[in-house]
Amino acid sequence: MWKTITVGIVAYSHSKYGRLAEDIPTLLESAIEGAISNAEGGIDSTDIDLLIVSNVDNQFSNQHQIGTVALRYLHNPQAEAFRIEVACASGGMATYLAKQMIESGSARNALVVGVEKMTHLSTGVTTSILIRGGAPEEIKYGATQPAAYGFMSQLYMQKYGATEDDYALAAVKNHKNAMKNPWAQFHKEFTVEAVKNSTMIASPIRLLHCSPISDGATAILLSGEPKKYTDTPVYIKGMGIGYDTMGVFEREDPTFMLATKIASDKAYKSAKIEPKQVQVAEVHDAFSPAEIFAYEAIGLAKKGEGYKLLREGRTMADGEIPVNVSGGLKAKGHPIGATGIGMIIEIYLQLLGQAGERQVRGVEYGLVENHGGTGATSVVTVLGR
Amino acid sequence: MWKTITVGIVAYSHSKYGRLAEDIPTLLESAIEGAISNAEGGIDSTDIDLLIVSNVDNQFSNQHQIGTVALRYLHNPQAEAFRIEVACASGGMATYLAKQMIESGSARNALVVGVEKMTHLSTGVTTSILIRGGAPEEIKYGATQPAAYGFMSQLYMQKYGATEDDYALAAVKNHKNAMKNPWAQFHKEFTVEAVKNSTMIASPIRLLHCSPISDGATAILLSGEPKKYTDTPVYIKGMGIGYDTMGVFEREDPTFMLATKIASDKAYKSAKIEPKQVQVAEVHDAFSPAEIFAYEAIGLAKKGEGYKLLREGRTMADGEIPVNVSGGLKAKGHPIGATGIGMIIEIYLQLLGQAGERQVRGVEYGLVENHGGTGATSVVTVLGR
Repeated sequence: MWKTITVGIVAYSHSKYGRLAEDIPTLLESAIEGAISNAEGGIDSTDIDLLIVSNVDNQFSNQHQIGTVALRYLHNPQAEAFRIEVACASGGMATYLAKQMIESGSARNALVVGVEKMTHLSTGVTTSILIRGGAPEEIKYGATQPAAYGFMSQLYMQKYGATEDDYALAAVKNHKNAMKNPWAQFHKEFTVEAVKNSTMIASPIRLLHCSPISDGATAILLSGEPKKYTDTPVYIKGMGIGYDTMGVFEREDPTFMLATKIASDKAYKSAKIEPKQVQVAEVHDAFSPAEIFAYEAIGLAKKGEGYKLLREGRTMADGEIPVNVSGGLKAKGHPIGATGIGMIIEIYLQLLGQAGERQVRGVEYGLVENHGGTGATSVVTVLGR
Repeated sequence: MWKTITVGIVAYSHSKYGRLAEDIPTLLESAIEGAISNAEGGIDSTDIDLLIVSNVDNQFSNQHQIGTVALRYLHNPQAEAFRIEVACASGGMATYLAKQMIESGSARNALVVGVEKMTHLSTGVTTSILIRGGAPEEIKYGATQPAAYGFMSQLYMQKYGATEDDYALAAVKNHKNAMKNPWAQFHKEFTVEAVKNSTMIASPIRLLHCSPISDGATAILLSGEPKKYTDTPVYIKGMGIGYDTMGVFEREDPTFMLATKIASDKAYKSAKIEPKQVQVAEVHDAFSPAEIFAYEAIGLAKKGEGYKLLREGRTMADGEIPVNVSGGLKAKGHPIGATGIGMIIEIYLQLLGQAGERQVRGVEYGLVENHGGTGATSVVTVLGR
């Protein structure tokens, strides 16, 4: 393989997350035009060869060939456009594929756009859509995503002595962090007691452990010649994809995120760094316990000890390794197709020193963990200057 | 760009099209294991680096991350898997992307799998899903795909003097061809009169101009070293992608398939051949008039003269350039995610001389035209020995 190109991020755009009035074409238009106009040195549409749209569900979007819908706003009919989907990991996978296409010489510059509109349907329909993230056998028997995470989280408590307080701490931390994020869906803090008293969804998962239903759009512009478009590119230092069984029931250890472990091993290896060299991370806390599972899978803590990081405040915004300073999926929001790209944007801004009130000091490397369903597909990205 | 690899098809599998009892996991399993066991010289799963699943709608599949679902049946957790979607052109696009990944050195061998289950939902729900192929504006105002094709077909008749008999001829020919295709959904012939007397759907589109609602799965194994796996590879000689506006209302000439013209120009150019060098073609007759539009866009006839090929019998199975000898989408069936790959398989078999009773004599080059919606996205493939 012939890989001498190092792919950099040269521009981005990010909508607010939450219940948005804009329709999908309008969100796509803002995301695409926003990213292009964000490129410091300017970039011609004709230099963008590839447009990948990350969008999870056709029933949410009421649209097929959304890549072609998006192409209208790129104003370059010579570009190639398509949609990619791997559940909630779609944003990470779209970025990975764009990176591969640039590294291999198939594209010079690529725009990766994530979009999802989720808030317009009834709760019943929304639930019937979101169950699709699971294994066919789980879907058949009605095991929703909260139910599957409930099982994993219950088992983790039994095995390792974590408590409901530990899970609550992740939610409390992320709601606190989101106070400083203008894009976040929620600007409201909660106490551990409030989380523990919120409605039970699937024991031990309570309402305030669950990421919300969100609308949003995000975009990043990737380049094989980043210096051409900005003096301050952020590089994709390493990236990895990992898979596990679709069903939680099929896993040897349902409390361990094997796909994320595989993906992060690959990402660290290609970035030539160790986990301890990362100063800031965004992880996929679709349900709060998943943040703890991620700590262990990306190597921030040993197996069964992830919850101790929260107890000791080490992943707080002012801790030694801040995690989800954006507010995480829990409080920033989770417009599923946009999420993975939004997470990358947070780390991109941290590396540029442009994260405003959320800025973590001395960031040399940042990591993003973006997974689908209960972790069947995982994409881990290491970014650096 | 560094492209010395010529990608070949070394194996395939193809389910029957129609109302199938099997669920999606079973269809994926058969498609994947079928293609792998079809490789003459045998192939290890570990040599397959990439698994792309073409699947159009999440409401049809009731599944997210179907690429990861499919990965179970490849038995190679090191492979990378994802789903791609560009409406009915998904199968062609998945093949194009796999070809790019192999040519660029990102993958050695890639399995491209198409699957769709469509027959299990009510007509109302199915209609509400299939409208998603159109432009957001068309969807908003309830313009279904038959309605949009009805407009295009009406205008074509007015401009060029084609008649309802001409549209019927395409359906009659394809139903006749399907009699010899064991995979076809329909094995029933119709007269021109029967087509013209069938239920009116959206004038001048009648029921017997419409491709059916189908289940099905198809797979092809692509290789950068085809000779390693078979003595008789079929090569992808050329391939092109083209785009047009999503909406028919936005087009300068709604009777001309611009995206297919762009895609076929690229495909011929990369194959270094002229349209007249093609001996057999499969085109995307989702609605019968679209077959005529395709003749013109791929260069078999001049603009406004495509219908004459049918009148003169030139695209009949025994004509000078047989089109849709498989029965076409009209009579073979149209399980949307599987369709584009199924069309490629027909031409692959024609080139191998393995098309049974459908075999066309002296095939050196064959062409596939696979488009999405009313032609907003088009993929054209030229295959040869």
